Amino acid sequence: MAIRVPQGYRLAGACCGLKRDPLKLDVALIVSDSPAVAAGVYTQNLVCAAPVQFDRQHTPSDRIRAVAVNSGNANACTGQRGLRDAAAMARLAAQACGAADDQALVLSTGVIGEFLPLEKIARGIAAAATRLAGDDESLLAAARGILTTDTVHKLAGRTLPLSGREVQITGMAKGAAMIGPNMATMLSVILTDAPLDVPSADAALRHAVDDSFNCISVEGHTSTNDSVLLLANGAAGGPPLAGDDLARFGQALDEVAIELARSIPADGEGATHLITVEISGCQTRADAVLIAKTVANSALVKTAITGADPNWGRIVSAAGYSGVQFDPAGVSLHLNGFHLYQGGAPVAFDAAAVSRSIQENRDTLVALRLSEGDAGVRFWTTDLTAEYVRLNADYHT
Amino acid sequence: MAIRVPQGYRLAGACCGLKRDPLKLDVALIVSDSPAVAAGVYTQNLVCAAPVQFDRQHTPSDRIRAVAVNSGNANACTGQRGLRDAAAMARLAAQACGAADDQALVLSTGVIGEFLPLEKIARGIAAAATRLAGDDESLLAAARGILTTDTVHKLAGRTLPLSGREVQITGMAKGAAMIGPNMATMLSVILTDAPLDVPSADAALRHAVDDSFNCISVEGHTSTNDSVLLLANGAAGGPPLAGDDLARFGQALDEVAIELARSIPADGEGATHLITVEISGCQTRADAVLIAKTVANSALVKTAITGADPNWGRIVSAAGYSGVQFDPAGVSLHLNGFHLYQGGAPVAFDAAAVSRSIQENRDTLVALRLSEGDAGVRFWTTDLTAEYVRLNADYHT
Repeated sequence: MAIRVPQGYRLAGACCGLKRDPLKLDVALIVSDSPAVAAGVYTQNLVCAAPVQFDRQHTPSDRIRAVAVNSGNANACTGQRGLRDAAAMARLAAQACGAADDQALVLSTGVIGEFLPLEKIARGIAAAATRLAGDDESLLAAARGILTTDTVHKLAGRTLPLSGREVQITGMAKGAAMIGPNMATMLSVILTDAPLDVPSADAALRHAVDDSFNCISVEGHTSTNDSVLLLANGAAGGPPLAGDDLARFGQALDEVAIELARSIPADGEGATHLITVEISGCQTRADAVLIAKTVANSALVKTAITGADPNWGRIVSAAGYSGVQFDPAGVSLHLNGFHLYQGGAPVAFDAAAVSRSIQENRDTLVALRLSEGDAGVRFWTTDLTAEYVRLNADYHT
Repeated sequence: MAIRVPQGYRLAGACCGLKRDPLKLDVALIVSDSPAVAAGVYTQNLVCAAPVQFDRQHTPSDRIRAVAVNSGNANACTGQRGLRDAAAMARLAAQACGAADDQALVLSTGVIGEFLPLEKIARGIAAAATRLAGDDESLLAAARGILTTDTVHKLAGRTLPLSGREVQITGMAKGAAMIGPNMATMLSVILTDAPLDVPSADAALRHAVDDSFNCISVEGHTSTNDSVLLLANGAAGGPPLAGDDLARFGQALDEVAIELARSIPADGEGATHLITVEISGCQTRADAVLIAKTVANSALVKTAITGADPNWGRIVSAAGYSGVQFDPAGVSLHLNGFHLYQGGAPVAFDAAAVSRSIQENRDTLVALRLSEGDAGVRFWTTDLTAEYVRLNADYHT
């Protein structure tokens, strides 16, 4: 089975009453039996939550034993007290698995601007610690404990035969975009039993995040809490990966990250389509990302897809105001494989057939090709529905 | 009366069948009896419409006699033929008022990617030419002829006593954001009988646009057709304005432009709130604009206002991902005068009272103060409603 707990890890989910529904899991505890190399990538938001500030100080590391995650409270915009609370939560996690105070990381997601109820958190971590195990149910419980408004849990994994040993990569993620009652947050923890040195772990994670979690959006509102952690405890045995093995590991990690990242807009609040925006023919990858983001975040493009309208003018004009310089006469556009636009002017196409194809498929592919170079990117987003507005307008803090 | 046709101009609206509703006005013709100084500011979108390309080549100018505007068709993404059509439309307008071919400007708004039906346009301009007049009805007819999905016409004016003469500034605008069936477009024509030389007209218009039309958004999708024109025919008499008179004229022009610009998000599709985002305490105005735009275009901020939710976390975190560097601990936020956030942490406030104040007022004031410097900006936007999504998802090209 491609999705299983890697060797040397134990996980658990617990419920301590942080969410409105008192029966929902709201804590996850992840323990590595031996010290693991840990790397992290965090939100670019200047206004970043206390757990992000805490983890930033403690990664990369070669001695992490535990990660505690809570949902229902983001511990964001909580000032100095929030920082103390994050450190206290890390201490609780470390103590729960017999580790030193500085061997734990923390992640939080949920309401912004409320202080962490530490007694509940302590109860949750204690309960989780009694249930730690390496089986599928424990993995599932942990994956559920980190969810907020997600409708499904998000897991992805790869089993990788490398020279002389088999390595497992298993990741979990949460995010439905404007999730939680208050704020979008994307969290992910990826575990592997592969042996990695700190620089390799850090580099592999950064590479993986670039093409995955940095290439998704729902409405473009960057959260205060976004975090992706990679733990590598080396339980699969052998010396740190290098050469071909490291490259193959990196590729599998990329795949896991992309699978997890895609699952977030796929579960986007109120969404009826997962839109893949494929930009090619750019001078640089940065140009391609900027165009992809601009197209993906345009309410006009999103609502066109919601309405199954092959409204190419909205897509082409979004590229036009992205800030990237290009020759408009060199642009071509395909939507779900139909050719709609070429060389600065519309192509005759069967609008009813394109509309049907959008209507009948949850996945929509917008492929925009420029003629400036060879760089490109794939980016994932959702459409924009009245249900999304309802979900985010009707909730009251 | 502050809103009247300035001396030496005649206007008319006409109907030539460009819109779905065959009875709606879809052409406006504006004629200056003597050659007028004309300045223009246009969309920054790389993918810009044929009339924008045409007017860019012909402004600034000191000899414009006519402006022809059509709604219902944007003449955008129409390639070389679109450019020929825009030139033909300008010729028709020039001939209708006995001017030379190069004395007319054109504006278009409506569906993207369809060729301009020139026969209809010719009929519309000819009909308008027979009705040209300087009275209030003609002004109103012209202001209506440029509308698309706007629910109200948009006019603003100032009468200005300057040394030895009285000067009139009257402007019209259109825009309801994602207007027209296909694409948001903002158009505005401002007429004055003040005497201005070309550099003064150009500078005054650029200054006015910076604090008005460049400070509004609905969903942040920059149109292919956005244009603001200023015509100054000098019919009020006297030499070109200079010194104090020019400064006072500039201030009145700023006021007219702001009034017109505000009226666009105020009429935003489906909007239930006009949101003023006031950013202060920045190092530079550019920083303030970037923060204001990011806050204004966040779907999270918009839906919070829709739902009358004093969700300050969405506002503060939007500023945090704007790309502007600032100290989060120096931020304070007021919403409709209520103090919600100070120094990186929430302030105790009466959430029900703030919510009531949002609910009971169509105007919402979001005032975010940083502690980096003295620069600031005011920016206007709409909330985001399910009705907006419906309007833009259900329409089919």
